[in-house]
Amino acid sequence: MSDERHPGKVYLVGAGPGDPGLVTLRGVECLTRADVVLYDYLVNPQIIRHARSGARMICLGRHGSERIWTQPEINRQMVESASEGQVVVRLKGGDPLIFGRLAEEVDALAARGIDFEVVPGVTAGLAAGSYAGIPLTHRDLASAVAMVTGQECTDKQPGSLDFQALAKFPGTLVFYMGVTTAADWTAALIQAGKPADTPAAIVCKCSLPGQQTIRC
Amino acid sequence: MSDERHPGKVYLVGAGPGDPGLVTLRGVECLTRADVVLYDYLVNPQIIRHARSGARMICLGRHGSERIWTQPEINRQMVESASEGQVVVRLKGGDPLIFGRLAEEVDALAARGIDFEVVPGVTAGLAAGSYAGIPLTHRDLASAVAMVTGQECTDKQPGSLDFQALAKFPGTLVFYMGVTTAADWTAALIQAGKPADTPAAIVCKCSLPGQQTIRC
Repeated sequence: MSDERHPGKVYLVGAGPGDPGLVTLRGVECLTRADVVLYDYLVNPQIIRHARSGARMICLGRHGSERIWTQPEINRQMVESASEGQVVVRLKGGDPLIFGRLAEEVDALAARGIDFEVVPGVTAGLAAGSYAGIPLTHRDLASAVAMVTGQECTDKQPGSLDFQALAKFPGTLVFYMGVTTAADWTAALIQAGKPADTPAAIVCKCSLPGQQTIRC
Repeated sequence: MSDERHPGKVYLVGAGPGDPGLVTLRGVECLTRADVVLYDYLVNPQIIRHARSGARMICLGRHGSERIWTQPEINRQMVESASEGQVVVRLKGGDPLIFGRLAEEVDALAARGIDFEVVPGVTAGLAAGSYAGIPLTHRDLASAVAMVTGQECTDKQPGSLDFQALAKFPGTLVFYMGVTTAADWTAALIQAGKPADTPAAIVCKCSLPGQQTIRC
């Protein structure tokens, strides 16, 4: 056969916001079949436990401690394992499409002709609403909800987020990874005309035992 | 005892976008314990099948065919069953927080002192991105994603959605229940200054065998 064979497959799986009950049936099914699991360090160990014994488990590193895998290294490992015919699960916190750098991983797989499937998950912003008792849409009050990164990527120009447009957004705003930058984005929103008495809440460790909710 | 007792409980569960693999473990657990299940007619029958035999299954009606339960009727049934000590699952398509009228149901339960829990689900907009291969956020291109109803509630003023602000939104826009109204909201966005050549896609029956994706 002249064609290069890629009998393996990569599943890009959303693990949900943390609570081990919030992974999907399909996510668990992928984990039980995986030969290799590459997981974000934030994924709950009780979810990783669904992988079969004997699977190769690769933690992609914790900020501020041991080595963190770079995006090209992650891409290379997925391509390499799938090319060897292995079933690979790339397990991501929340939903892979929301601030998960999914496009870069999908592009790398597609460029090498690797078969892949995206398994969506419960995104943290919606779970935060559920667990903190905050309806993100409301028949009378909010016809829309926006999810915005609280960590403007350092490669982009600072201030590339249009806070004028965000301040006028006709619905609820949810900032992801926004705890450490809360002072910045709240100031930017108020400066752009958002009333300073707009109700707000900060949710930490959503759906996990250490969850904290601060309303302000 | 002078206090009225409410030993039952209501679980407001997101069933995900349709694919029976996209329900969460916690959602399945609630279904297996339920005495009464009130489900939207759009929920996949394969998901409803997780309920134990003997549970009372109540379909809330299909648009355009038999009777549709009104919101007050749904609230009354949940309160009544839980007050009798039953475990009730209110099964909703997608995620309960996103255009699911969750606030009205939660208010009705809270007003009667009924214990409840919200179990988030995979919302259709994110699944649409996964299944249609469209990254909704991108490190370089989109720092935010907004979910907007395509069915402005008839009780509100027509045109109450601020399309000027939506047209300037710095990220991806996802219109829910927007297929029949696509001509209206695209025209409103373009009139508000959104370039007419903005890439767009329409996804029908997301994650189900009949899924269709049209890019334009």
